[in-house]
Amino acid sequence: MKVHGQPMRTIWIEPDGSSVGIIDQLRLPHVFVTARLTTLEEVAHAIRSMQIRGAPLIGAAAAYGVCLALRKDASDGALEQACEVLMATRPTAVNLRWALEEMRRTLRPLPPSERVAAAYQRAAALCDEDVAINHGIGTHGLPLLQAAWERKGKQGRLNVLTHCNAGWLATVDWGTALAPIYLAHEAGIPVHVWVDETRPRNQGASLTAWELGQHGVPHTVIADNLGGHLMQHAEVDLCIVGTDRTTARGDVANKIGTYLKALAAKDNDVPFYVALPSPTIDWTLEDGVRDIPIEQRDGAELTDISGRLPSGDVVTVRVTPPGSPAANYGFDVTPARLVTALITERGVCAASPEGLRSLFPERARGTET
Amino acid sequence: MKVHGQPMRTIWIEPDGSSVGIIDQLRLPHVFVTARLTTLEEVAHAIRSMQIRGAPLIGAAAAYGVCLALRKDASDGALEQACEVLMATRPTAVNLRWALEEMRRTLRPLPPSERVAAAYQRAAALCDEDVAINHGIGTHGLPLLQAAWERKGKQGRLNVLTHCNAGWLATVDWGTALAPIYLAHEAGIPVHVWVDETRPRNQGASLTAWELGQHGVPHTVIADNLGGHLMQHAEVDLCIVGTDRTTARGDVANKIGTYLKALAAKDNDVPFYVALPSPTIDWTLEDGVRDIPIEQRDGAELTDISGRLPSGDVVTVRVTPPGSPAANYGFDVTPARLVTALITERGVCAASPEGLRSLFPERARGTET
Repeated sequence: MKVHGQPMRTIWIEPDGSSVGIIDQLRLPHVFVTARLTTLEEVAHAIRSMQIRGAPLIGAAAAYGVCLALRKDASDGALEQACEVLMATRPTAVNLRWALEEMRRTLRPLPPSERVAAAYQRAAALCDEDVAINHGIGTHGLPLLQAAWERKGKQGRLNVLTHCNAGWLATVDWGTALAPIYLAHEAGIPVHVWVDETRPRNQGASLTAWELGQHGVPHTVIADNLGGHLMQHAEVDLCIVGTDRTTARGDVANKIGTYLKALAAKDNDVPFYVALPSPTIDWTLEDGVRDIPIEQRDGAELTDISGRLPSGDVVTVRVTPPGSPAANYGFDVTPARLVTALITERGVCAASPEGLRSLFPERARGTET
Repeated sequence: MKVHGQPMRTIWIEPDGSSVGIIDQLRLPHVFVTARLTTLEEVAHAIRSMQIRGAPLIGAAAAYGVCLALRKDASDGALEQACEVLMATRPTAVNLRWALEEMRRTLRPLPPSERVAAAYQRAAALCDEDVAINHGIGTHGLPLLQAAWERKGKQGRLNVLTHCNAGWLATVDWGTALAPIYLAHEAGIPVHVWVDETRPRNQGASLTAWELGQHGVPHTVIADNLGGHLMQHAEVDLCIVGTDRTTARGDVANKIGTYLKALAAKDNDVPFYVALPSPTIDWTLEDGVRDIPIEQRDGAELTDISGRLPSGDVVTVRVTPPGSPAANYGFDVTPARLVTALITERGVCAASPEGLRSLFPERARGTET
């Protein structure tokens, strides 16, 4: 999508042919700066520190992390260790694991001398596949927005609520939840996005608002607390969110607070869609609330907030009193019963075992193992 | 309740016998400072700027605002104008209106020369009545916490979730939602409070955390997004919130985001209690979602966050990108069907017309007018 009018991706190979370029998302929305990663450790740090985040982008970055590790040492041991280090950066992200398994599967059989070139090739292909997947999600999601716009008699604007950032900044390009929105915008539907701030890390207020603004999509930032009220007053036509992990029956783990919006959508008959690339489906799990491990993060993400002073300097301030502890979980699980439909690169389906198997028949047995 | 170990109220008459002392709640939790109000305009500003907030405290402050206005001019016109100015400060607060009507009713029949003394007397009585009401709410709410603690087999700790600040800082003393919690703490129940941050103004993170900490009640600050996840995992034994306005059938308008917590409580069979002094009941309304006007506030409350720098200075930072607008509503309405029970100074009742009338039989006809 566009930044300052120029199309770009979130991850690329630098002109030196080996190091990896990224947008430093920790500096957004205040400053747009790119960073150059040259080692496995730098990639792992970029993921851990959330300079790059979003399940698909983390997968792509991890693939390039393997490339950078192999440049130093292309042995079996180095390959295994690189995968371990990268896997530990964000344990909830199922397509981080998927990307690393892809790399391992491709590289393991090759002699070490051929691994570096093959790794870069596979990582680049993973990126292109992610772009194709997200564009597919957009294409399949667009008719849902068109239908909502027609149901509304094409009056006013089409109000879509989203939580966190499942936009192009979370992927290589297009985004997952935002892909149908970008396509609707380009198709001339007057779409307007309610952007949940998404405490504690403010990915909505900082990243989603920034990327929608850069691409010219009308939007309004709201407190996470506001969505229910807006739905009660028919100010939300539909919700679309992303997911970090989807179970075989359609439970979805997404940024903390997603579950609350899904409850409000259900209570007000607002469609609640979840957009997902199929690599985020974990076919080994059924009951997401019970079985998806939820990452517990540093309470400082809640108690200390970064922002821009009038002088332009970006600083971090403490909002809580001294001595008050904070608890911080990264995700919650929205049960399938609250999800109107899943939007995947293969099409739209019910959030149910049958729905998912109808789109992924090759997995029909996977859930029984 | 206690500040630095000393019991105090949130509003008092200064030693000069006429000016009004308050805690400047905008400076909390970073700095504890008091302010001295000497004119109607200063009181109106203190309410508008939210140096003082919380429905009962606003009512008490407004009563003293009338006193200060009458000191300058005790005529009928001045009395009316003072009430108008004060009423306009926070249109959602129904007991602001109630307090002003009490003052008007008391003072109107008196000759102007007697009004100032009578006004101070009535305002002081209003404050004492508020303290008595809140202590009554605490007394009636305490058995609900005791019962929950017994249901839990008195194991671990009793986890109570609250939203915004309905503590003693929102009232003259004790608080509404927090009154039963303070009494449970004093009764030796190991109560622990999950304190919703309460975006956009962070009253939970700043005020509730501060007052619980000052009084020694264990608590943990959480993002507003977290409560649903905690309830899914049985980490919340019950919720108690306050309300700014309650309809005759038990719909409650409270700080934006309350509705989302009530939905999560319902979905997870967690009791959801609303504590209220009867002056916040608006007997003229039934359907809160339809009929309670919701105050729309400055978007800057969302986009600009105040906090403490490591140097100790308190500054305001911008969190959103330039050009991204923000929407901000102060309250939402939780329908009675999501409320387990109402806790009032007269006792506990169902959130229904019958429930409320059983406690307030004198109002049984009021709802029909």
